[in-house]
Amino acid sequence: MLEQQLQFSVREEDELSVDLIEAQYALKNTRDKNNAKSLVILVSGIELAGKGEAVKQLREWVDPRYLRVKADPAHLFTNKQTFWQPYTRFIPAEGQIQVFFGNWYSDLMATAMHVSRPLDDSMFDAYIENMRAFEQDLKNNHVDVIKIWFDLPWKSLQKRLDDMDGSEQKWHKLFGLDWRTKKQYDTVQKLRQRFTEDWFVIDCEDETVRDQQFAQYILQAMKQLPKHKASVRTRWKQATVPETLLHPSTEVLAEDDYKAELKKLTRKVSDALRNDSRNVVVAFEGMDAAGKGGAIKRIVKKLDPREYEIHTIAAPEQYELRRPYLWRFWTKLTETNEITIFDRSWYGRVLVERIEGFAKPAEWQRAYDEINRFEKDLTDNQTVVIKLWLAISKDEQEARFKAREETPHKRFKITPDDWRNRGRWDDYLNAAADMFERTSTEYAPWHVIATNDKYSARIQVLKAILKQLNAD
Amino acid sequence: MLEQQLQFSVREEDELSVDLIEAQYALKNTRDKNNAKSLVILVSGIELAGKGEAVKQLREWVDPRYLRVKADPAHLFTNKQTFWQPYTRFIPAEGQIQVFFGNWYSDLMATAMHVSRPLDDSMFDAYIENMRAFEQDLKNNHVDVIKIWFDLPWKSLQKRLDDMDGSEQKWHKLFGLDWRTKKQYDTVQKLRQRFTEDWFVIDCEDETVRDQQFAQYILQAMKQLPKHKASVRTRWKQATVPETLLHPSTEVLAEDDYKAELKKLTRKVSDALRNDSRNVVVAFEGMDAAGKGGAIKRIVKKLDPREYEIHTIAAPEQYELRRPYLWRFWTKLTETNEITIFDRSWYGRVLVERIEGFAKPAEWQRAYDEINRFEKDLTDNQTVVIKLWLAISKDEQEARFKAREETPHKRFKITPDDWRNRGRWDDYLNAAADMFERTSTEYAPWHVIATNDKYSARIQVLKAILKQLNAD
Repeated sequence: MLEQQLQFSVREEDELSVDLIEAQYALKNTRDKNNAKSLVILVSGIELAGKGEAVKQLREWVDPRYLRVKADPAHLFTNKQTFWQPYTRFIPAEGQIQVFFGNWYSDLMATAMHVSRPLDDSMFDAYIENMRAFEQDLKNNHVDVIKIWFDLPWKSLQKRLDDMDGSEQKWHKLFGLDWRTKKQYDTVQKLRQRFTEDWFVIDCEDETVRDQQFAQYILQAMKQLPKHKASVRTRWKQATVPETLLHPSTEVLAEDDYKAELKKLTRKVSDALRNDSRNVVVAFEGMDAAGKGGAIKRIVKKLDPREYEIHTIAAPEQYELRRPYLWRFWTKLTETNEITIFDRSWYGRVLVERIEGFAKPAEWQRAYDEINRFEKDLTDNQTVVIKLWLAISKDEQEARFKAREETPHKRFKITPDDWRNRGRWDDYLNAAADMFERTSTEYAPWHVIATNDKYSARIQVLKAILKQLNAD
Repeated sequence: MLEQQLQFSVREEDELSVDLIEAQYALKNTRDKNNAKSLVILVSGIELAGKGEAVKQLREWVDPRYLRVKADPAHLFTNKQTFWQPYTRFIPAEGQIQVFFGNWYSDLMATAMHVSRPLDDSMFDAYIENMRAFEQDLKNNHVDVIKIWFDLPWKSLQKRLDDMDGSEQKWHKLFGLDWRTKKQYDTVQKLRQRFTEDWFVIDCEDETVRDQQFAQYILQAMKQLPKHKASVRTRWKQATVPETLLHPSTEVLAEDDYKAELKKLTRKVSDALRNDSRNVVVAFEGMDAAGKGGAIKRIVKKLDPREYEIHTIAAPEQYELRRPYLWRFWTKLTETNEITIFDRSWYGRVLVERIEGFAKPAEWQRAYDEINRFEKDLTDNQTVVIKLWLAISKDEQEARFKAREETPHKRFKITPDDWRNRGRWDDYLNAAADMFERTSTEYAPWHVIATNDKYSARIQVLKAILKQLNAD
């Protein structure tokens, strides 16, 4: 990656403003269309270089109704929060522009400069790599990301510090480092050079040049937003459907054995979940009527509702469709959610969305890696990700569908959609097979549970959870 | 208010379930319709009474996709957060049901029981009154609220504590009080009796009765959701339009004086905002082209974007229209936002929405009190609310509109809507006059600023802010 370029000369302000506003409106008008886009602008740099001034000037040149600015003091990294968690809520919807003045890079810098034992280079670089992968995922999901570094030489910085009055100095202390120390300045420069090679770097000696370069670079980005990639290069290699899906075990557990074991295991599971210092995410997938609801009920049996959250995932809402498909899951997971259960999950992308054509081939084929990265970020940050596929046979499903239709209080559970999905049984098996092959990772493996016998299924679910929590 | 009643007998589970699901679907289907409703269920009670079990049982009887449960440990009150701030994000959209297991009442109880100097009765009761007013506002805005207290006699509680195993006991300690102490139990009962007169109280000795009463009460509430009130009882008494609006001062400030004073005041304002330990909310209203943007620019001139947030308020989005109109403002204000500026605000309800008929007479007429309560809650919790109306004369507006149309980079600021609004000049003056009369309170007064002369206007805005911060 090369440092980002801009053909630059100072432009007449009013003309620049007209161009910016037109580009903004063009972006805004992509909303809900096939070429829909949004734009994230990451802003970082040396203190007093004038990031704030440049953002304020930009607000005056553009239509401020369609430019949002999020400017937080640094979030120091904890080992329970991924770098994107403080920001994902603000990832813009189609047609919107969001400036993150203060972002994952400034958090990384602040963390690296703050902790008593600084991050070593390899850890720092690992973060950078993760951040770039995350940004690439955003871009692939139509949120373009541009990054702008406001630079200032040491001498100019010192001169600006000399010129500040007392009140400003006091304030700058709040968020900043000690910018009077050459060693700290050098460390910042050394660190930022580890990641700014794909940033647009602005030399902020001259205020007009600074504000103009900032605005013009954004203008250029808005005009050159990359097209959606929808083509697939290679032919898809379908994985073999495993025997556990084709012929789920029909072994039956006797009621007495079930009851005794269930009692023991629900207690054990609640203790394990409660006492694990990590957060736990449990995701259920599987054919309709495979028993997801019943399994969830047994997991939370001995827990109090204040200890967990259950998300039942249905079709996305319009405001969710205007953002990357993972957005509605990003925003449901925070570091304070200790136990989170998903009745259906982000795997919808490579299951129903793939099969029904809601996601284009390029989109669902890309999603496996996106999902793996998402789960890796979580597991790297003290979160256990437990994934369960409830496998049922086609005959057993039919029997349960019919039973549901005949039972008034279960009728809502069965809709024409369910029968239609059943008609695509083999497509679902194939999609599940591909999913296992590509997303059953060491850090977040899939557990396939045979559910033709409900008793045995519930026991196996509890055992799988205990196993992954190392509490069996 | 009387304790809430229910005609009760234990029902056949499956039939109850069918009824619940049908009522849920009926509620869900009101979405985006004229009779749209949502439902908030507040759940509190004695520890071990079985709130959690009842919520879990309810989840099994209803369609869990349309029942959300939010269960937080107590948020102890701080003096910087209103009681509703932890919850407003989760106020349900039309058609949805939200259980708050853990809510503003349990927070109040926890605060009262926790602080070393407990809240005295009059303070406790003042909170209750505020909470009821907030709930009434929710109801008026089509979010129905029902409240359910799970009760358990002292002896039964002790027996259940005896029967618990170690792991459960440990966990219950986490959130709870010491439920082994009779004095604490009595205090809880004494306190809750100060607010449960309009709650449905369930005696939880019997588990079946408990779960059934809980579900049946919710069913009854869903079936009897009150109709939208849209009628107005009395004839509206229009306030007299003040002279400051009819003939804004045309006094002119010389450029030299302006520049010197501006420099001094921008510094003073940034210092005052920065050093005030309270949060500050500034809301701008006024006719189009009155100079809101220019005024905001001068307020933040000497601030860093990390110190403030600006919200430019446009027409609400669909997901915002599905909630009370204050919702999008509730959710923009958190205790950590130290300086928040609104370019247009919640007053849209009694201005554009009133005039354009987006709000019915009953709705905008009710809004004055709702807004006053909202601002009172904020100012009671260490937030300064500064409201500025920028007053321009009709001639000066025309001149500015024409100048905008002739200036390419300002053309986006002027649309057919602006000319149309201008055609309703007198309606806006009347609406503004009513607004001043009804919402200029001691705790959040309106400042009317004459803006025919831009220089003078900007100076007056800065002075008004200083004045309200007691920093002039």
